[in-house]
Amino acid sequence: MKIYGDKISGNCLKVKYVCDLLNISYNWIDVDVVAGEAKRPEMVAKNAVGQVPFIELDDGRTLSQSNAIMRFLSEGSHLIPNDGYQRALMDQWLFWEQYSHETAIAVARFQVRFAGKAVTELNEALVEKGNSALAVMEMHLSEADWFVGDRLSLADIALFAYTQYAEEGGFSLSSKPFITAWLKRVREVVQ
Amino acid sequence: MKIYGDKISGNCLKVKYVCDLLNISYNWIDVDVVAGEAKRPEMVAKNAVGQVPFIELDDGRTLSQSNAIMRFLSEGSHLIPNDGYQRALMDQWLFWEQYSHETAIAVARFQVRFAGKAVTELNEALVEKGNSALAVMEMHLSEADWFVGDRLSLADIALFAYTQYAEEGGFSLSSKPFITAWLKRVREVVQ
Repeated sequence: MKIYGDKISGNCLKVKYVCDLLNISYNWIDVDVVAGEAKRPEMVAKNAVGQVPFIELDDGRTLSQSNAIMRFLSEGSHLIPNDGYQRALMDQWLFWEQYSHETAIAVARFQVRFAGKAVTELNEALVEKGNSALAVMEMHLSEADWFVGDRLSLADIALFAYTQYAEEGGFSLSSKPFITAWLKRVREVVQ
Repeated sequence: MKIYGDKISGNCLKVKYVCDLLNISYNWIDVDVVAGEAKRPEMVAKNAVGQVPFIELDDGRTLSQSNAIMRFLSEGSHLIPNDGYQRALMDQWLFWEQYSHETAIAVARFQVRFAGKAVTELNEALVEKGNSALAVMEMHLSEADWFVGDRLSLADIALFAYTQYAEEGGFSLSSKPFITAWLKRVREVVQ
């Protein structure tokens, strides 16, 4: 299997984390997102949406969307809860991550870290959205060690991917002790 | 089971469509999103994120995120492919829908239909994003009747939910014969 990705991207790292945790072997193909390589014709031919990560199986079939890839590679493993309701909660967090978290935390971090914007120049609504997302996480983690059940699941990996870089986008985690402790817990497993 | 939702919302309709297709009985609790009812304290107590749809099971447990709810309710049914790779492709489209489609098609439609904005006043990047999403769909449907495999799946239901209203947000479907034919196919099953 090949993973097409860029290690500056939390979405790409999710796929790497899962493969490393589950001992799935892969060839990592670097795609420079800042240089726009994901939109080059030879990439779009493999993955019409022109984004990374995507994977290419040995038979040539491809799959995109970080959380869909993680779910596919983790099928039947301890990273997906056996219980149907817990699995649904995991999916809830995966969709929430892509809709309400990544779209603020990752976007702000990209603008500051890779596009040279000052934190003070960030769009106000974007910052508010990011702070709301972190507040939801902090509240959840004040009552639980993990996002679903009593062990790490894909929900934690998905949310870890960009939360670990939140401060690069100007978000402060110093007032978020539960997120900070959870990041440490995840980092002990995922690297 | 209770479904908390607003029938003007494609995301809420997804849950209704799935229940109706699978003969799952439910009580529909109207939550007026335009009036901000989803953010009222009694709603937030049930669903911290303050969004609809969410479901409340008979034992009081709740679940949010439209695509996660659909996936939960459809477990083991014909709406989710049995084959692992096809199921992953379904997930790919579900995540793509929430990240790249809903965020443009539903947002533009909401602004025009419910917030009184003129189509000409819509943010240019938003319109471009919506047109790109429709182009991806049109390309896919030029080669296949359904988004995954040879029958309707949750991927079609998710994408149908707001594509059926795309023109209310100023997007033209008259130059999209494959989407138009697919909408008709889905509408024959889903209502």
